[in-house]
Amino acid sequence: MIGVVAGVGPFAGLDLLNKIATQTAARSDQDHLAVVSISRPSPIPDRTAFLMGVTSLNPAAPILEQLRMLQQLGASLAGIPCNTAHAPPIMDVIREELDTSGRPLKLLHMIREAGKFMQHYYPSVQRVGLLSTLGTSFSRVYPLFLEPLGFEVIEPAGRESKELVHRAIYDQDYGIKARGYATERTREDLLRIIDDLRAAGAQAVILGCTELPLAFPENEVNGLPLVDSTMALARALIDAVDPLKLRPWPAQPSG
Amino acid sequence: MIGVVAGVGPFAGLDLLNKIATQTAARSDQDHLAVVSISRPSPIPDRTAFLMGVTSLNPAAPILEQLRMLQQLGASLAGIPCNTAHAPPIMDVIREELDTSGRPLKLLHMIREAGKFMQHYYPSVQRVGLLSTLGTSFSRVYPLFLEPLGFEVIEPAGRESKELVHRAIYDQDYGIKARGYATERTREDLLRIIDDLRAAGAQAVILGCTELPLAFPENEVNGLPLVDSTMALARALIDAVDPLKLRPWPAQPSG
Repeated sequence: MIGVVAGVGPFAGLDLLNKIATQTAARSDQDHLAVVSISRPSPIPDRTAFLMGVTSLNPAAPILEQLRMLQQLGASLAGIPCNTAHAPPIMDVIREELDTSGRPLKLLHMIREAGKFMQHYYPSVQRVGLLSTLGTSFSRVYPLFLEPLGFEVIEPAGRESKELVHRAIYDQDYGIKARGYATERTREDLLRIIDDLRAAGAQAVILGCTELPLAFPENEVNGLPLVDSTMALARALIDAVDPLKLRPWPAQPSG
Repeated sequence: MIGVVAGVGPFAGLDLLNKIATQTAARSDQDHLAVVSISRPSPIPDRTAFLMGVTSLNPAAPILEQLRMLQQLGASLAGIPCNTAHAPPIMDVIREELDTSGRPLKLLHMIREAGKFMQHYYPSVQRVGLLSTLGTSFSRVYPLFLEPLGFEVIEPAGRESKELVHRAIYDQDYGIKARGYATERTREDLLRIIDDLRAAGAQAVILGCTELPLAFPENEVNGLPLVDSTMALARALIDAVDPLKLRPWPAQPSG
């Protein structure tokens, strides 16, 4: 059974669950994979707030508790649809605890899966732009996992651009987390940054925060591939439990 | 914590989870309600197949097992996003077991909630059309719960029309369960039946199978209100755990 820590954030969790269902080859209810999910966001402190030192409460502990609950229900494999939670100060604590205690739970690593997805489906891409939260950017988790795979990671230039992306996700009025969808303004702000990344040499852009695919369901913008980290994780989870049920990935421009 | 038996079927489960999230007043991840869901469809036999005597395996047992798993994780309230599972031969077994054993779990009744939703938001409607699976129709669960509330239930005339609706849901090629969305053909078939129900005097039409709102996200068709049983259940679940977080329902035509 696949386990999902679905509350980081709730709409990103739903997006992952939806991608698991749509990427599974199934003709009836009974063909679908078994998935258990917990969306219990209130005890999990904001990941960026922890990484930036705004709070000293590490989200690792409540995330770990929810992974244990999923395991208790029979999950043997799990995913956490939050890029920022994969930053080493959070993820290292989670993995260490998982490794040293109790029954084994295989936790897929979203950033690594995004890298493998690009290697597989965009073999000619070498320089990738990154849209992310400030926490993901600050932690350098994408360069850490992607550079060993041969990718160069390009980020929006300057604090202001990075904050624009962060607000598109977090703003309590117009942000994706508050609305559950992307407003016109949010999409326009993000499209501007995507254009900047293209101008800076990016051959593809990673939607490196799980709220961002809600703004960009499409696979490309004016020919520039968008790499959906949630899609990469969804497909990796299916592949790990039942590769025969993984739907073929649509033909993609290879950047 | 809200518990959801999300595998009946998987896309209907996702629709309920999505409606719980979008109908909750929240400005950040942490504002959202705690929801645990299990989508484990393979051990649950098809509900219509049981009601029509095609199989003698009552889906009540595996549904009950999954309710117990949700409870084990801390759910005190649960919903089952499948109208057909509320037919008495299935639901009576579930409720009896829940009542007589173990800790209490409050299970909301989707059909009753759909009736209360109509009373509240469509006070002038008296005759309601019903789109459903053959199992829901055969079991007469809608008349059973809605007539005491003062509604008259009008069904598609004749076996052929009912089978058209059933296939729109179940067909393993073009049906909503197989696709995870409604094809043009499915929508056209269903629109034709909706027109028939209107001609037969329906003042509103109940989407009485949880796959149907995937075909009709809109609240009305040419002025005829569509009553979404999944929406009714989602709002009832939120109202039961934290009424202050229930978003106002948009102004509705009252039929």
